[in-house]
Amino acid sequence: MHEIITLHTDNKGLYEFTSTAQQAVDKSKINEGLATFFIRHTSASLVIQENADPSCKNDLENWLEKLVPESSQEFTHTMEGADDMPAHIKSALTQTSITIPVIDGKLCLGTWQGIFLWEHRAHRHSRQIIVYIS
Amino acid sequence: MHEIITLHTDNKGLYEFTSTAQQAVDKSKINEGLATFFIRHTSASLVIQENADPSCKNDLENWLEKLVPESSQEFTHTMEGADDMPAHIKSALTQTSITIPVIDGKLCLGTWQGIFLWEHRAHRHSRQIIVYIS
Amino acid sequence: MHEIITLHTDNKGLYEFTSTAQQAVDKSKINEGLATFFIRHTSASLVIQENADPSCKNDLENWLEKLVPESSQEFTHTMEGADDMPAHIKSALTQTSITIPVIDGKLCLGTWQGIFLWEHRAHRHSRQIIVYIS
Repeated sequence: MHEIITLHTDNKGLYEFTSTAQQAVDKSKINEGLATFFIRHTSASLVIQENADPSCKNDLENWLEKLVPESSQEFTHTMEGADDMPAHIKSALTQTSITIPVIDGKLCLGTWQGIFLWEHRAHRHSRQIIVYIS
Repeated sequence: MHEIITLHTDNKGLYEFTSTAQQAVDKSKINEGLATFFIRHTSASLVIQENADPSCKNDLENWLEKLVPESSQEFTHTMEGADDMPAHIKSALTQTSITIPVIDGKLCLGTWQGIFLWEHRAHRHSRQIIVYIS
Repeated sequence: MHEIITLHTDNKGLYEFTSTAQQAVDKSKINEGLATFFIRHTSASLVIQENADPSCKNDLENWLEKLVPESSQEFTHTMEGADDMPAHIKSALTQTSITIPVIDGKLCLGTWQGIFLWEHRAHRHSRQIIVYIS
C-alpha cells in the first residue's frame, strides 16, 4: 500500500510530518511491517531528528547552511539561483529514503524522534514524499 | 520478524555489531530477504564501514569530530551538554536506517564491510537498534 | 528477486545507472513493491541526484573533494594510498543502501532524479551493487 504525502514549504528548514506519517500507517491497517519514505526531489531531503526542542532543528539548519553557503564562488550549476547547488549538496549529505519498522501498528520511533522534510531551497515549494507500507 | 539489539557504549566512536546482526538473521531462518536496521536515537547513528583495520574507524571518528567540534560557539541547543548538538548533526550526516539484502541466509556484506553503531555522545549510553527481517 | 549490477569506474565521480536499475525492475515483473540498492564497498557509495545537467554532478564531486581532501596530514589509515581514507569518509557521508518504491512497474523517481554510483577512489575499480526487488 502506498500513499503520496504532499508538503508545502516556504523557506529552508525542517518540517516535521510524523503525525501524517503515522496516519498513513493507521490507514494501511498493517500491524507489523515496514514503512519506507522516499522523497521525489534532489533539493530537499528526509531526516529523523529530535522533535522536542525547536532549538535543535534551528542549530541543524544553521550549521548546514554554514557548511554549504550560497556565497561560494565555486559552483557552475547556478541557473536556478544561488540556493540551488547548495540544496543538491545538502540533499546528498542527508537522506532520500528512510525505512522505519512498524510494530503494533506504530512507527517504532524512539521517544525523541520525529521524521522531517528538510527543505534546502528558499521560497515556496510543494514536495512529494511517497510512503510505502508493507 | 523483529528483534531489538541493545548496545552499551562508553564514549564516542564506532562499535561493530555485524556478528550480532547475523545472529538475528540466523534466528529468523529467512534464506532470502531484507534485513532493515533502525536506530531509535538522534545522537547516535548507523554506518557500514571497513572492519579490517582499526585505523579506519579512528580516522573516521577524528575527522567527523573536527568537522563538528564541541567548541563551536554557535549552538543554542546546549542544555544537555556541549557534546549534544554536535551529536545530532553527526547523526543527521550519517544513517538512522540501513537495509541489507539477505542471500543464502547471510547478510550480503562485501568482504571488508561491517555494520557499526556510531556513538556521538561522550559518557555511557544504552542504545536500541531494531532489526526487522522479512 | 535479486540481481547484481556490476559497474566499472575509472576515476572519482558520479556514474548514473538509472536505466540498468529500471531494467532489473522490468525483469522482475513486479508491478508494485520496493527496490533496494546496496553497494558492497566502503570506498564508493550511492546517491540520488539530479541527472539533467552534468554541471550538478561536477559541482557535487568538487565540493566533496574540497571537504575531504587527500592532502590532509591527519590520516593514519594510509596503506592503500592517499585517496583511500577520504573515500571511506565520503562513503560514510553518503549512502550504502537506498530503497525506492516501485509503482506501475516503474521506479517512482521524481522528474529530475537519477540513481548514481559515487566512486571515491582514483584509478579503475569494479563495483558491485545488489538490487533486491520485492
